[in-house]
Amino acid sequence: MTANQARQTRVLIVGAGAIGGFYGAALQRGGADVSLVCRSEAEVVRQHGYRIESVRRGDSVLRPNQILLSAADYQGGPPDYLVLSVKVVHGLDRVSLIRDAVGPDTAIVLIENGVEIESEIAQAFPANELISALAFVQVSRIAPGVIRHFAFGDLTFGNYPRGLSERSRHFGALLESGGIQCALTEQVVTARWAKCLWNAAFNPASVLGGGLDTEDMLGTPEGEALVRRAMQEVRAVADAAGHSLAPELIDQYIENTRKAPAYKTSMALDYLHRRPMEIEAIIGNAVRAGRRERVDIPTLENLYALLKMVEHKAGKPA
Amino acid sequence: MTANQARQTRVLIVGAGAIGGFYGAALQRGGADVSLVCRSEAEVVRQHGYRIESVRRGDSVLRPNQILLSAADYQGGPPDYLVLSVKVVHGLDRVSLIRDAVGPDTAIVLIENGVEIESEIAQAFPANELISALAFVQVSRIAPGVIRHFAFGDLTFGNYPRGLSERSRHFGALLESGGIQCALTEQVVTARWAKCLWNAAFNPASVLGGGLDTEDMLGTPEGEALVRRAMQEVRAVADAAGHSLAPELIDQYIENTRKAPAYKTSMALDYLHRRPMEIEAIIGNAVRAGRRERVDIPTLENLYALLKMVEHKAGKPA
Repeated sequence: MTANQARQTRVLIVGAGAIGGFYGAALQRGGADVSLVCRSEAEVVRQHGYRIESVRRGDSVLRPNQILLSAADYQGGPPDYLVLSVKVVHGLDRVSLIRDAVGPDTAIVLIENGVEIESEIAQAFPANELISALAFVQVSRIAPGVIRHFAFGDLTFGNYPRGLSERSRHFGALLESGGIQCALTEQVVTARWAKCLWNAAFNPASVLGGGLDTEDMLGTPEGEALVRRAMQEVRAVADAAGHSLAPELIDQYIENTRKAPAYKTSMALDYLHRRPMEIEAIIGNAVRAGRRERVDIPTLENLYALLKMVEHKAGKPA
Repeated sequence: MTANQARQTRVLIVGAGAIGGFYGAALQRGGADVSLVCRSEAEVVRQHGYRIESVRRGDSVLRPNQILLSAADYQGGPPDYLVLSVKVVHGLDRVSLIRDAVGPDTAIVLIENGVEIESEIAQAFPANELISALAFVQVSRIAPGVIRHFAFGDLTFGNYPRGLSERSRHFGALLESGGIQCALTEQVVTARWAKCLWNAAFNPASVLGGGLDTEDMLGTPEGEALVRRAMQEVRAVADAAGHSLAPELIDQYIENTRKAPAYKTSMALDYLHRRPMEIEAIIGNAVRAGRRERVDIPTLENLYALLKMVEHKAGKPA
């Protein structure tokens, strides 16, 4: 931070959905020079910026410095941070989306769901710093160029596979200046497994029940028992993979979910809106980790198999 | 068959759905005096009879001798056979539906789906002969008083808990005269478990995928593996309950299902039409049998729990 102190930190965001827009706006408020790769809505954003409506935080607008159709078009040299915030879905090649904009000093930041989603990027860019981030936020893109923020907003992150670099801390400082609460961790992979504990249980069940909310899922003894079985299996897989999670986390998650107003998971919303679901990131990778570590995971296998059936059907001509 | 030979066999059918109408018509063709308890469509049936449309067998009409709103209204003394062909769904008291028409010499015939569905009736009518029957048929009630027959029609039956009485044979003779192929068995409970092997796997998965057909379910390796796991668990439960099923049955079922044109299960059709599903008869009883026999049944438990979530949601005000 010597010669560079004078110039703005340059951030390129790839993936102009709700997550990319929401945190992009925060980075801009925090003082960064933010550019955005977006496709369908480039023209709307060029004219009006990317509007974030939030009851809690007030409305704000992200006005990207550069609005690009592809990362390759980014001008002025490689960015300091390339934020990848696309959904991790089947058939999307995340490496090729970002390759042309990653310079030798670019830190790659993943703000994405799931477990074991980093290795593909780490292998493609072995010399780059990789920051892995988990968003705890309810945001939704409600129209071209318009995001609605419903609740939360915290970001948990750290370096992959572990540690916490100066670049990570600087990224956190920008976000904090932009109003985002950050939890920096030296064990981000463990944090991903902890989030997976909730996600791999509730997300699949919400889809398989036809778009259930949390109350629907916890509303019967059998339902709660299923959720607990899935969580116990994730915990066993995480443990075998070297990421011990506190056993009381399961009770806490169930209790907190019961206390919160009923809501639908991101996967249920994708399902109901006939969008691709993050099946592999949210449960498929956990299943593969379980097989690799030779952990008995019948419930995860079953949930995954049922989701693959749903996906198979969705992929057929109607 | 001495003094009674002169008079017609008297059959009362309780449950005027597709199954009751279809086999009722066959019994009438076979020479029986058939009466029908039906509610909403009593007037239509009184005027036009119960029409069965069948490409394979030609159309036919069941003209019941008595059309009743309740079994208690049956005239002329108790029937020789009381056929119960209602769906086995939560909250329906099957015993009270038939109690007033069951005489000391009435044989009760269950033409219903599921496993372990007989004991409730056997306990309520310990002195009566109980015949348990499995229909292999695709029929659907398409309008009040109109049934469409799509395929098959065979009936497998025998006495509960085992054996094959004269009354069973006579019932078979009536049906055979009416054009129905019957498979009489001394081990009807084993036959129920064999059918459950298919039902408890495909029916729940078809609902949980949002109304899948058989091709959707077998279209991915994960899907087929799930179906096989469920079948293996049912086989283990049946075995523990004293009903050994041939191991090759699983391969046969998968192969035959693959070869047949894709179709939706009865439970998927109920789900898509927002009708009550036979969750307990088709999988709940198998789960309880597995718990009772201390068999490890994670897949059946998971499928059952997910169906309970669906049912819980369906029961809530929209």
